[in-house]
Amino acid sequence: MPGGPPSGPAGTGHRSLPSREFDTVERLTRSAEEPLVDGAEWSWFRAWWNERRRDDRMLARPVAFDALSTWGFDRESGDLAHDSGRYFTVTGLRVRRHGVTVRDQPILHQPETGILGFLVQERAGVLRVLVQAKAEPGNIDGPQLSPTVQATASNQARVHGGSSPPYLEYFTDPPRDAVLADSLQSEQGIWFWQKQNRNMVVEVTSSVPEHESFRWIPLARLRRLVAADHLVNMDARSILGCLPFAPAPLAGPDTRLPDNGFRAALRRSYTSLPADTDRTGGHGELRRWLTALRAATPWSARPIPLRQIDGWERSALEIVDGARRDFRITAARVHTASREVAAWGQPLLAPRGQGHCVLVVMIVEGVLRLLVRAAPEPGLRHVVEVAPSIRVPGGVDPCDHEPSAEVLAAAGASGASRTRLDTVLSEEGGRFLHADTRYQVVEVDPGSRPSDVDALPPSYRWVTVGELLTLAELGHQLTIETRTMLACLHSLW
Amino acid sequence: MPGGPPSGPAGTGHRSLPSREFDTVERLTRSAEEPLVDGAEWSWFRAWWNERRRDDRMLARPVAFDALSTWGFDRESGDLAHDSGRYFTVTGLRVRRHGVTVRDQPILHQPETGILGFLVQERAGVLRVLVQAKAEPGNIDGPQLSPTVQATASNQARVHGGSSPPYLEYFTDPPRDAVLADSLQSEQGIWFWQKQNRNMVVEVTSSVPEHESFRWIPLARLRRLVAADHLVNMDARSILGCLPFAPAPLAGPDTRLPDNGFRAALRRSYTSLPADTDRTGGHGELRRWLTALRAATPWSARPIPLRQIDGWERSALEIVDGARRDFRITAARVHTASREVAAWGQPLLAPRGQGHCVLVVMIVEGVLRLLVRAAPEPGLRHVVEVAPSIRVPGGVDPCDHEPSAEVLAAAGASGASRTRLDTVLSEEGGRFLHADTRYQVVEVDPGSRPSDVDALPPSYRWVTVGELLTLAELGHQLTIETRTMLACLHSLW
Repeated sequence: MPGGPPSGPAGTGHRSLPSREFDTVERLTRSAEEPLVDGAEWSWFRAWWNERRRDDRMLARPVAFDALSTWGFDRESGDLAHDSGRYFTVTGLRVRRHGVTVRDQPILHQPETGILGFLVQERAGVLRVLVQAKAEPGNIDGPQLSPTVQATASNQARVHGGSSPPYLEYFTDPPRDAVLADSLQSEQGIWFWQKQNRNMVVEVTSSVPEHESFRWIPLARLRRLVAADHLVNMDARSILGCLPFAPAPLAGPDTRLPDNGFRAALRRSYTSLPADTDRTGGHGELRRWLTALRAATPWSARPIPLRQIDGWERSALEIVDGARRDFRITAARVHTASREVAAWGQPLLAPRGQGHCVLVVMIVEGVLRLLVRAAPEPGLRHVVEVAPSIRVPGGVDPCDHEPSAEVLAAAGASGASRTRLDTVLSEEGGRFLHADTRYQVVEVDPGSRPSDVDALPPSYRWVTVGELLTLAELGHQLTIETRTMLACLHSLW
Repeated sequence: MPGGPPSGPAGTGHRSLPSREFDTVERLTRSAEEPLVDGAEWSWFRAWWNERRRDDRMLARPVAFDALSTWGFDRESGDLAHDSGRYFTVTGLRVRRHGVTVRDQPILHQPETGILGFLVQERAGVLRVLVQAKAEPGNIDGPQLSPTVQATASNQARVHGGSSPPYLEYFTDPPRDAVLADSLQSEQGIWFWQKQNRNMVVEVTSSVPEHESFRWIPLARLRRLVAADHLVNMDARSILGCLPFAPAPLAGPDTRLPDNGFRAALRRSYTSLPADTDRTGGHGELRRWLTALRAATPWSARPIPLRQIDGWERSALEIVDGARRDFRITAARVHTASREVAAWGQPLLAPRGQGHCVLVVMIVEGVLRLLVRAAPEPGLRHVVEVAPSIRVPGGVDPCDHEPSAEVLAAAGASGASRTRLDTVLSEEGGRFLHADTRYQVVEVDPGSRPSDVDALPPSYRWVTVGELLTLAELGHQLTIETRTMLACLHSLW
């Protein structure tokens, strides 16, 4: 007879993997767990980093749109576009609910799929990562730790007339066995129209030179740095967040934190999948939940000419909503010593305030459960993806969802909660001006949780880290904020 | 230690499934294999079908656009839309290659997710399916066998003022265990902008009445009818094509056809997955191949106002390309005795000729391999999905791909090929006027195949039925033509 029940452990069993995938998970996990002392490796990294912060300065000066020499407003559509037709375009978006227009807004449209890639290499039995110190015009505080490569097809084709990004050749046609991770992931669906990037990790075995602004650092180091304010950039977090770690249970009692077993519960959450997990799809129930909510969402959106958006005004310096509550589109002239070309002008999207994301977590039977939400964002290809428990953008939420009272209560209105992580991180500085988000992981006590977990609306769900990671591999399932949250959780075990 | 190699059989092993999924696969397969004699059940079905063909007439008369009382061209955008803002809209699409506009065209935009659902019920140990005889204005030859429910949110909300579609309530909030299949699937990406439908199979255990144009028929009967010309409609084929069948190897020699073991090889193809299959993702290598081709595609598209499309002309009766080589947008006044409302007007998309799809197959080591192509269609959410070996639309191919010489050769230029299936089927008659496609399954002899399989471009790949079915579950991976091909293959074992 065909098929048969799985022979692996049921319930909170480990994920079944063929040998190559098993190798990858085991190597990534072992490398990420490498004990680090703040010795020579750390001093050396800090010296390099301080040097980069001193030398890699980028100055973004606000200018009028008509001072952007290679950008202009299209006569027909009013879209703000680069003369080459490449990079990105500022166009309009019309957002509908149940077929009725509820909002227009500008949106960034970049149809090319970029490559975000880390090169890794094994030395002394553990993986090291080639990080880049990269300044971006919208960054708040100088350069950030970035993937080895962040390149669009425009970069690859050298539209800007500069040099090709270093190391790009390792990602364009890698040998199959060298690819440790590869998926297509979304970005902010409130600011981007259907943008995606290819998130890759590629292993090299031959010697690779360190260019000036690149350094090989232990994966274990990079993992621990994610929670530092404004240090690891959004693209790096996106790749890290999706890596299939599977830490083993703690050997002894956890002495690192005076906690209630948080760290042990977190580690167990990586390898815990519900008993009804579909092992062909890897995450059957979770996927069905998302399918139903995607099918039922009343939200839809379509691009329209920027000229036609209602409720926004364009001045010489900015495109802004009438109520002055939302983001602005601005222009900047950028000067740098370190980029492919020495100076350029470009539009930037400036949020009006700090964003705020909260991941509510709870220990149930020794396993950490995360409260996620299937949330709509008009610019996502499938409209709905898995978001953190609470997400308040720096500006207007186009799909207008108030976090439900239950979630707010669970997130700390009661006294029985502990903040496990609280950090302010930057969003993409190449497109956004000073976009920062506060990320919090808040643990609630199962005993004190409001009324009942089942009282939450059906768009909320308690999941394990392992469930999210399995979903992440498929691409276009987890929002960029959820991937950042996963990267933050990776820093805690 | 986390994870571990799979304990199931490697190589051409069966897919590992947890018990509930195993039950579903086993029941679907057993039901689809039920031996049928052309006795009472068949006579009874034919009598009903002949009655439906006599009574369920639909007349679509061409009219001018301004004779459509509830449709009109938007003053600002020029889009052709329903007064309610619901149903679908005819808008414009701008297709780009490497960022350069290569083509404009009209496109159908329907942001709502429809439900396509079959009700099934077990009787005497096998599943029966509630089929609907459904006429559509664009159908070539009267009603077709359709899913129990084809409903958009507009239908559900009864925008048209008629009655709610029968049986819809079984699909809107079914108990979890009753859902045997549930995924979001694309439709023609050359004619629709990012359309998706929720493909469902829901089991009922209570008694369900048969309305006049609905009949319970054996799943085995429906499976066998797929290959009949213009009988099983596109939506039904889409659902059937994705069903996770897993027929067991033939017990004895196949006496049904004087063949070379085609049927045995086909059956083996359902449960054959390559040795390197990723059992968490279910189809790791295939998914990686698709990811790389999606990331690298030079094609992109965005909706634009219909008023702005270049190269097309609008007359009182149609919207047509200057060269008269592509589809037309027309209008029809529809009269019927059987639909929720008795008469209505609507636009229809009329292809210029018959489409043609070929699936090249080959028996390798006793297992049928299918030649598929990761092909671009501008209206698909991920632009690239898995298509049959060859696809020539009834009109212009917007992404302008000539089938490669190797594929054409493999498909029959040499003498050593056998046509295993050759049928003409209708595409969606609710949106398309007389859109028919010839579907062929052509087996080539491994000995006679041109030069080498590896000589094919990287967008082509040999896969098993099992691989495609595992991919199908994820949604938005297989084009509608590929799902139709799978439904056709289902009819052959």
